[in-house]
Amino acid sequence: MTNFSVECVLSRQFEPVEHHYSRRDTALYALGVGLGESPTDPRQLRFVYEQRMLALPTMAVVLATPGFWLQDESLGIIWENVLHGEQGFELHDILPVEGAVIGTTRVNDILDRGAEKGAFIYSTNELREASTGRKIATLTSTDVCRSNGGFGGRADGAPPPHPIPTRAADAVWDFKTDAKAALIYRLSGDYNPLHVDPAVASVAGFESPILHGLCTFGIAGHALLRETCEYDPSRLTAMKVRFSAPVYPGDTIRTEMWRDGSTVSFRSSVRERGVVVLNNGKATVERSLST
Amino acid sequence: MTNFSVECVLSRQFEPVEHHYSRRDTALYALGVGLGESPTDPRQLRFVYEQRMLALPTMAVVLATPGFWLQDESLGIIWENVLHGEQGFELHDILPVEGAVIGTTRVNDILDRGAEKGAFIYSTNELREASTGRKIATLTSTDVCRSNGGFGGRADGAPPPHPIPTRAADAVWDFKTDAKAALIYRLSGDYNPLHVDPAVASVAGFESPILHGLCTFGIAGHALLRETCEYDPSRLTAMKVRFSAPVYPGDTIRTEMWRDGSTVSFRSSVRERGVVVLNNGKATVERSLST
Repeated sequence: MTNFSVECVLSRQFEPVEHHYSRRDTALYALGVGLGESPTDPRQLRFVYEQRMLALPTMAVVLATPGFWLQDESLGIIWENVLHGEQGFELHDILPVEGAVIGTTRVNDILDRGAEKGAFIYSTNELREASTGRKIATLTSTDVCRSNGGFGGRADGAPPPHPIPTRAADAVWDFKTDAKAALIYRLSGDYNPLHVDPAVASVAGFESPILHGLCTFGIAGHALLRETCEYDPSRLTAMKVRFSAPVYPGDTIRTEMWRDGSTVSFRSSVRERGVVVLNNGKATVERSLST
Repeated sequence: MTNFSVECVLSRQFEPVEHHYSRRDTALYALGVGLGESPTDPRQLRFVYEQRMLALPTMAVVLATPGFWLQDESLGIIWENVLHGEQGFELHDILPVEGAVIGTTRVNDILDRGAEKGAFIYSTNELREASTGRKIATLTSTDVCRSNGGFGGRADGAPPPHPIPTRAADAVWDFKTDAKAALIYRLSGDYNPLHVDPAVASVAGFESPILHGLCTFGIAGHALLRETCEYDPSRLTAMKVRFSAPVYPGDTIRTEMWRDGSTVSFRSSVRERGVVVLNNGKATVERSLST
């Protein structure tokens, strides 16, 4: 076992990742996060049908990803104990429904939250349209290496979590996930067997395969589109969340939303178990062009 | 409008179609016909998870298809009134879970069933593995050109429909289709808007988009695998059906099966409306190697 090397993580060079995707991929992503549950709803149809198609803003997080690079042995990370802690995106332009993008990842920071909490790795993936170099999105991700804390590093400096208002939510939307949600979602590129193989899920300490955190993220994005953007994806320009608990396929996700100007605070919980699964959510919602 | 040309149809030359497919495509096809509804059932998991993967025998019918060639104006077919009448496959070997196949289509016969019933076009698509030329499957299809009958051709010569036994079925399996079944199924290659676009479905005389006939065919194949093959796809070597009525996503498909040696007769109906949707079904089921 190699020792955890902060220097190797911080200085890691990532090859640019080129990702070609089609309208079929765009529809499959939308189906994976639950669009089309009401197949004759014309607002949902736009995301799953290639005519006059729109891309979900949250699809940006599955494009041109560097893969599970923390598994690289030279980094000395006990990757089996890594959790996805936070995810965000900022869209600089409307996400194309098909095309090719190039993703360039870099590590921004590592914080040492002690042996109990672990090492927090902050990274960014910048997406550019392959043909023009135009910047499309900036994705931010926090990986929590639970077994690699206490290496003597700096503990502070993380952006504070976005506070959720204490008043009653301005909008609430419940979405019942499909029993086969993870099976569909994984075809958008995250083939981690934790989300499909009962034996792997059991070893990881779960009753059965859990839903991808980024699938729940997409469901929260759907809630925001529906309740605060009238299904206009050009209005949802940024989202950021903390992952706080696992979701099982079949769970009902309740997303609560609070509007304050262009900022929408949100969190998602599983109704059946009353547990918050996405917390400290912050979204940016642009005003409609038609109002 | 060109006149209907029997000679043009019979002598039509088809370019061989090469189709590359991946385990992702194989999983997506299986999800499209409803596998994975019980995501922790290990028998279903084999068809939707790339580890120790198996391909559904019915997937043969979506590989290397010539597309909707009857739309070609030079044939003089009123393609808006064409129905898919029958479909069959015979597998000469186990269907690979990934790879490349080449499909070669030819028209075998045209029958004239009169102005009322239409012209029946019988065609065959032979699938071979691209790398070796090994024959994998023979697909048979009957297209009913409802507005092109009465051209003065031969009426007889069609193989008689397979008779369904009059005794009670030996096995029955009900499967509730998903409201978004057609949205998933179509990503396996049949993008006909009739199955997704409410406006197109309405023009065609349906209340809402109907499920693909070949999706129902796949569901019947699942019923056969489950009830007569212990989910061993190598045992289901042939299937043939007549399409007799449309299915709407959300309908419950009841498949009745009758075993007589290696022949399994079957038919499928919609429970909610009591209407037969696949009729005169005949399957060939090989004995298990383990018994």
